[in-house]
Amino acid sequence: MPAQTTRPDPAFDLAMMRVAIDEARKAMPSPNPPVGALVVSAAGEILATSHHRRAGEEHAEIIALNAAGEGVRGATLYVTLEPCNHEGRTPPCVDTILSSGIKRVVVGALDPNPHVAGGGAQRLSDAGLPVEVGVAGAEARALIAPWGKFITNGLPHVALKLALSLDGRIATRTGASKWVTGPEARAKVQELRARHDAVAVGIGTALADDPRLTVRETSLLPEGRQSPIRLVFDTRLRLPLHTRLVQTAREVPTWVLSGAEASEEAEQALVDAGCVVLRTPTSAEGRVDVTAAMRLCASQGIVSILVEGGAELAGSLLASRVPDELHAFVAPILLGPRGRPGAVDWAGPDTPVEAPRIMDPRWELCGRDAYVNGPLAFPPRG
Amino acid sequence: MPAQTTRPDPAFDLAMMRVAIDEARKAMPSPNPPVGALVVSAAGEILATSHHRRAGEEHAEIIALNAAGEGVRGATLYVTLEPCNHEGRTPPCVDTILSSGIKRVVVGALDPNPHVAGGGAQRLSDAGLPVEVGVAGAEARALIAPWGKFITNGLPHVALKLALSLDGRIATRTGASKWVTGPEARAKVQELRARHDAVAVGIGTALADDPRLTVRETSLLPEGRQSPIRLVFDTRLRLPLHTRLVQTAREVPTWVLSGAEASEEAEQALVDAGCVVLRTPTSAEGRVDVTAAMRLCASQGIVSILVEGGAELAGSLLASRVPDELHAFVAPILLGPRGRPGAVDWAGPDTPVEAPRIMDPRWELCGRDAYVNGPLAFPPRG
Repeated sequence: MPAQTTRPDPAFDLAMMRVAIDEARKAMPSPNPPVGALVVSAAGEILATSHHRRAGEEHAEIIALNAAGEGVRGATLYVTLEPCNHEGRTPPCVDTILSSGIKRVVVGALDPNPHVAGGGAQRLSDAGLPVEVGVAGAEARALIAPWGKFITNGLPHVALKLALSLDGRIATRTGASKWVTGPEARAKVQELRARHDAVAVGIGTALADDPRLTVRETSLLPEGRQSPIRLVFDTRLRLPLHTRLVQTAREVPTWVLSGAEASEEAEQALVDAGCVVLRTPTSAEGRVDVTAAMRLCASQGIVSILVEGGAELAGSLLASRVPDELHAFVAPILLGPRGRPGAVDWAGPDTPVEAPRIMDPRWELCGRDAYVNGPLAFPPRG
Repeated sequence: MPAQTTRPDPAFDLAMMRVAIDEARKAMPSPNPPVGALVVSAAGEILATSHHRRAGEEHAEIIALNAAGEGVRGATLYVTLEPCNHEGRTPPCVDTILSSGIKRVVVGALDPNPHVAGGGAQRLSDAGLPVEVGVAGAEARALIAPWGKFITNGLPHVALKLALSLDGRIATRTGASKWVTGPEARAKVQELRARHDAVAVGIGTALADDPRLTVRETSLLPEGRQSPIRLVFDTRLRLPLHTRLVQTAREVPTWVLSGAEASEEAEQALVDAGCVVLRTPTSAEGRVDVTAAMRLCASQGIVSILVEGGAELAGSLLASRVPDELHAFVAPILLGPRGRPGAVDWAGPDTPVEAPRIMDPRWELCGRDAYVNGPLAFPPRG
C-alpha cells in the first residue's frame, strides 16, 4: 500500500472508501442506514475500521475515532455517509470529529435525509477541515439506497423476487410449484431474505405453499439480526392458524396486513397465536392498498421488504409502480398452463417500450438457472 | 505443432478432429450431413482440409485425398463422419481410401444411418487399415445430430426459438411485440435462421407481425446457401396475398402447410403468387397435425427447421413433443397481460419435474438480454 502524502491520492482514497463500504455491509442497523468508517494515518496505515451496528448505538465514525486512540492526530477519516450534524439518539458526530485531531475527512455519500437541517460536510468544511465528498460515490449511494427512500419518502425499499420458468410460470396446471428453480437459486433467495428487514407474500401463496419464509442459515444474517419479519398480505384474514407462518409466529415476527372489513374474531385468533395484525386502507378492488400498506410498514421502522409473490401481489405492486428492484430466477424449463395467470398477474403496459425493466441488468449463472437483478425502472407512459 | 510419431497421440488426434469439425461447419449440404476431413502427414503437417459442400458433390474425404496428392502415402485421414461404404450419388469412399496409400483413419462419429448396410469403419479395419473411432465423438455427433434424426426417423430436427419477457410474454395487452428483446438478440436470431434449412411460423404470427423471416446478412449463410425456406402453418389458408411472405415468395421459397379442408381458390391464389402449398392431415382439434407436417417436410429434404412462434404453434409442438432444441432469449422486462396466453400456449405438465427442459443449458449474455440454448428433454410422465 503506498504511503499517503499530504497531497490526497484519488486512487488511494477510492481504495480506502471501498474498504469502508465493505465494512458497512457487515450490519443492517434499520431503521438507521449502514455506515462504515476508517481512520488512516498520514503514512497510509489503517488504524481503525468500524461500522454502525444497531440503531441507538454509536455511529461508525465515533467507534473508529475511539479505536484509533492517539493515532487520530493528523489522520484521515473515511466514512461512507456524511457525518451527522444533529442530535439524534447519539450526539452530533461533527463535534466529535472537529475535536478529535483528524486532519482530513473523505465522505462517500451525502446524507439524503430531507429532515436534517445543515449538512455535516459543510459544517466540517466551514470549520476549516478539508473534506472530500463523493469518493466511490455511486457505490456509497447504492449502499444506502433503501434507507434513502425510506427517510425521504416514508416508504420502504421494495424488492420483488420472481422464480419462474422460461415461459414465465410459477406453477403447473395442477398448482404444483416445487421446484421450478434449482437448489442454487433457492440458496440465493436465502441470502436475499437475510438482507431485508421483512419478507412478504400474498395470502394465495401462504395458502398454496405454506411457506416458512425464514433464513435457515443464521450465518447468512448480518450480525445481531434475526430472521426478517414475515408479512402476509391478507385482506380478509384468511390465514389459517395451522399454517407454518402462524405456528412459528412466536419465534419469528409475523405481521398480517388486512383490510378494515376483516373479521375481528379472525384477528383475535391470529393475535392470540402470536401474530401482529395491521389494518390498512383497501383499494378500489377491495384489496389491501399496497402503497398504504407499504407506508404503514415504514412507519413501523421497516426499511426494506423482499416480496416473494404470488402473482396477484406482484401484479398489484407493479400496477402501483411500487417495486424498486427486481430479482428474477429463470429456470430453463417450460410449464405452460394455458388459461392460468403467469408469474405476475396484471394488465401490463400498452407497448414493450413502456414495460417496467431493469435498465442495467446484472445476469449471473445460478446452477442451471439464470439470475438477473437490478433497479426496476418504470418508463413514462408513451 | 508436435511431430506425430508412429504411435498415435490422443491429444494430437483430438486437435486435428476439431479442425475437421470446424471445416465441416462451413457448409450445410442438406439433405446430406456436414462432413469435414483432413489429410495429415506422418510428420504432423496438415496437407489438405476439405468439407462436403453440397448434396451430389464429392464427399469431404475424397476432396482431401485428391488435394493431398502424393503426400497421401503414409498419411493419416481425419474425417468427422464414418466414410460411406455404399454407392450413393457418389462411389463408396472406403474404396478410394483403401487404394489411396493412407496408413491410418481417425473417425469422429459413426454413421447413424440405419438404411446403410455395413459400416465403412469396419470395412477399412477388415482390410487391415488402423481405424480409430469416436475422437471428439460428442462434438462430431452434435454436428450431425439434425441429420441423424432426419435419416433415422424421417423427421426434421426442430429447434424452437422464443423471444420473451421475464414473465414469459411475447406481446403486450394491445398485441404490441416490437421489440421485446434487444438488437443483439435479433442479430443472433439471424444467425440461427442461417443455420437451418427452413424457418417456420404459425398463421397468427404471420398475420400479426407480417414478418420477412429472411437472413438479411448473406454473409451469415453457409457457402452456396440462400435464405432458408419459409414455412407457414396455416390450416385454413388464411395467409393474405399482400403479406411480405407472399409478396417475396418468388425470391425466397415460401411453403404453406394447410389442412385438407382449406379452400382450393386460396391455394390457387397462393400458388399463383409463387408459394408452395402442402396439404397435411389435421389433428383432432382440426389443425395441421404438426408431426405429420414435419414428416412431410422431411420427405421434401428439409433436415432442420427453426420454429419462431407464435404461442399456438409452439404449444402444439410442445404438446406433441416435437422440438429437439430450444433457443430462448429473455429480456429483463415485465409485460403482464392478464388473461392472455404467454409465449407457449399449451396445457403443460402436471408437475415441474415433468416439464420439458434444457438439461445442460448454455446461458449467454446477449446485450441486456439472456440467451439460453440446448437440447430439449421431455422427462417421462411421473
